Amino acid sequence: MIYVTPQQITFTDQLLLKSGAALSPVTVVYETYGKLNADKSNAILILHAFTGDAHAAFYHEGASKPGWWDDMIGPGKAFDTDKYFMICSNVLGSCKGTTGPSSIDLKTQKPFALHFPLITIQDMVALQKKLIDHLGIRKLLSVAGGSMGGMQAITWAVMYPDMVHSSIVIAACHGHTAQQIAFHEVGRQAVMADPDWQGGDYFGKALPGRGLAVARMIGHITYMSWISMEQKFGRKLQDKEKLGYDFSKDFEVESYLQYRGQSFVERFDANSYIYLTKAMDYFDLSEGKKLSEVFKGVTADLLVISFTSDWLYPSSQSQAMVRALKANDVDVSYLEIKTDYGHDAFLVEFDDQTRMISNYLTKVVRERVSRI
Amino acid sequence: MIYVTPQQITFTDQLLLKSGAALSPVTVVYETYGKLNADKSNAILILHAFTGDAHAAFYHEGASKPGWWDDMIGPGKAFDTDKYFMICSNVLGSCKGTTGPSSIDLKTQKPFALHFPLITIQDMVALQKKLIDHLGIRKLLSVAGGSMGGMQAITWAVMYPDMVHSSIVIAACHGHTAQQIAFHEVGRQAVMADPDWQGGDYFGKALPGRGLAVARMIGHITYMSWISMEQKFGRKLQDKEKLGYDFSKDFEVESYLQYRGQSFVERFDANSYIYLTKAMDYFDLSEGKKLSEVFKGVTADLLVISFTSDWLYPSSQSQAMVRALKANDVDVSYLEIKTDYGHDAFLVEFDDQTRMISNYLTKVVRERVSRI
Repeated sequence: MIYVTPQQITFTDQLLLKSGAALSPVTVVYETYGKLNADKSNAILILHAFTGDAHAAFYHEGASKPGWWDDMIGPGKAFDTDKYFMICSNVLGSCKGTTGPSSIDLKTQKPFALHFPLITIQDMVALQKKLIDHLGIRKLLSVAGGSMGGMQAITWAVMYPDMVHSSIVIAACHGHTAQQIAFHEVGRQAVMADPDWQGGDYFGKALPGRGLAVARMIGHITYMSWISMEQKFGRKLQDKEKLGYDFSKDFEVESYLQYRGQSFVERFDANSYIYLTKAMDYFDLSEGKKLSEVFKGVTADLLVISFTSDWLYPSSQSQAMVRALKANDVDVSYLEIKTDYGHDAFLVEFDDQTRMISNYLTKVVRERVSRI
Repeated sequence: MIYVTPQQITFTDQLLLKSGAALSPVTVVYETYGKLNADKSNAILILHAFTGDAHAAFYHEGASKPGWWDDMIGPGKAFDTDKYFMICSNVLGSCKGTTGPSSIDLKTQKPFALHFPLITIQDMVALQKKLIDHLGIRKLLSVAGGSMGGMQAITWAVMYPDMVHSSIVIAACHGHTAQQIAFHEVGRQAVMADPDWQGGDYFGKALPGRGLAVARMIGHITYMSWISMEQKFGRKLQDKEKLGYDFSKDFEVESYLQYRGQSFVERFDANSYIYLTKAMDYFDLSEGKKLSEVFKGVTADLLVISFTSDWLYPSSQSQAMVRALKANDVDVSYLEIKTDYGHDAFLVEFDDQTRMISNYLTKVVRERVSRI
């Protein structure tokens, strides 16, 4: 077991947000794995998904489970910590250490709740840039993430072309579609329909747990595929020999969803839920322009990965990015991994991702920094 | 404009349910269109979907809109009322006139609410059979319906083979999958999470409207396709020139879903919502047996229709039925209609359905009853 201790840094200068608002101070929680080399050319920033955190790999002291992408990060793994210096920070707006709506507003000495400014994927990336500057790294060997992490990865390539040699965009998109917005909006409505929501000001009182659980249940369905749900649950009954003909839990899939909803309430904040879903819904790199226009300044090498059964962020969105990048002569590799796991595949399908990413990083080192 | 008046019949003998419970009296609301011929051989029963009702065609006195499938039923239409005698009844468990959980329990003189017995698709069909018997019809020329209506249509062919010459099964399945159960379970949890739910006993008090609206919003997403949502809404803003950077409605798709959720609360009962979704979740014609075994007794001619972009009841489920019917040498026609409208297509794509059904019924008349 390799242990890791979270670190944090507080920036006291203003973080200017895309909305026009500004935020200060801003604290960022992050972890690092492996060693930064002398010329600081082996650093890779890992970007986590919606409900993730800075703990991407290794073990916290006393913990029984490692970080969320430990299968991908470590000695000899896809992100080989014998070669690379890995960084993962918790995103702006989350509830896992970095400043977010559950942080204390210095003006009121109470949690921000809905007084926290609305944030965007671009704001998350802007804060990550501050962290990278703080670490003295001038140019990242790579940035990489799945889902909301992939949105950040492509945004890094657009916003800070001089600071990234490469970007790995997994199961993501260049902008949310109506259906993606719709699923999030239903989740937000479920949270806000909970009487314990109280306009977001539930701190120190009952949590809006039932609404948040419903929101998470919806999410879970979209993260799995039709097939993976059928393989895992089918019509299997929950602790029963036959149908109950009442409204108690009949099917395993019902109790599974309720369990996942409940456990989510214990680990995630309802305000962060609505802020981060809104940040994804606001995400739209094109903003009325052609995507090929948006990618004009991209100088990074790109690796785009999607999954055949991911219907939440379907391959067609990744392919649209690939086309628009190619139109700008960006060096882009694309892999569609055949899998039944749906959107969750980026947290499950390690073999194909490892082979692809490991070789890809070797290529980026060779072509972009010669050696590390 | 052709007008129609709903009729009703109350059966005082017991309706034995699949659960083992019994129900009496049971009232059925129904409408008819066209004329029953002398030998009663031209009758077709229309089976409505989840939130539908007996008003399938023509106009109620003073109404500005016709019945829900008026584009398909009428003189010269797919279900040609110059030829056929059409019947549509409201299903058991609904809130549109037929006995359901919002009906008065004679024992308590209060609405049943959760004291209503759980019902199944088979129970709906058993009640419809009582109505057909009551109308003196020995054998239906056809039964036809989409979605939950399609589940009833295939069930008719299995339960009462001697009473149906043909069955038209549209956008349906032979049993609910884990994903289909999952979406319904989230909807039920949303309803039950509403403090106004009060264990279903909300009659005469505030309605559990916020929960029911959230449940309906989820449903709406599943009824549309990724593409149809993109074409209808995309990222269009609602009455705004730019993003609001607050939690008011930014996108058209958000206000559309909220509007549909709200209007549903005004027209549908929360208890019926949970009873009918549960009935669909219980639906599983195979019940552990091979589907080809289940279809052994089917003597009806079958027409199965599915839609390419229907991801809620995907074509693969219709195709599984077609294969199992063919294994029994059932005369089955199958059409997959290419459309972007998703599951809602059965309420939208009239041209292809009309052509197919019109010709199909002519064939059934020729082969099964010679003339009508």
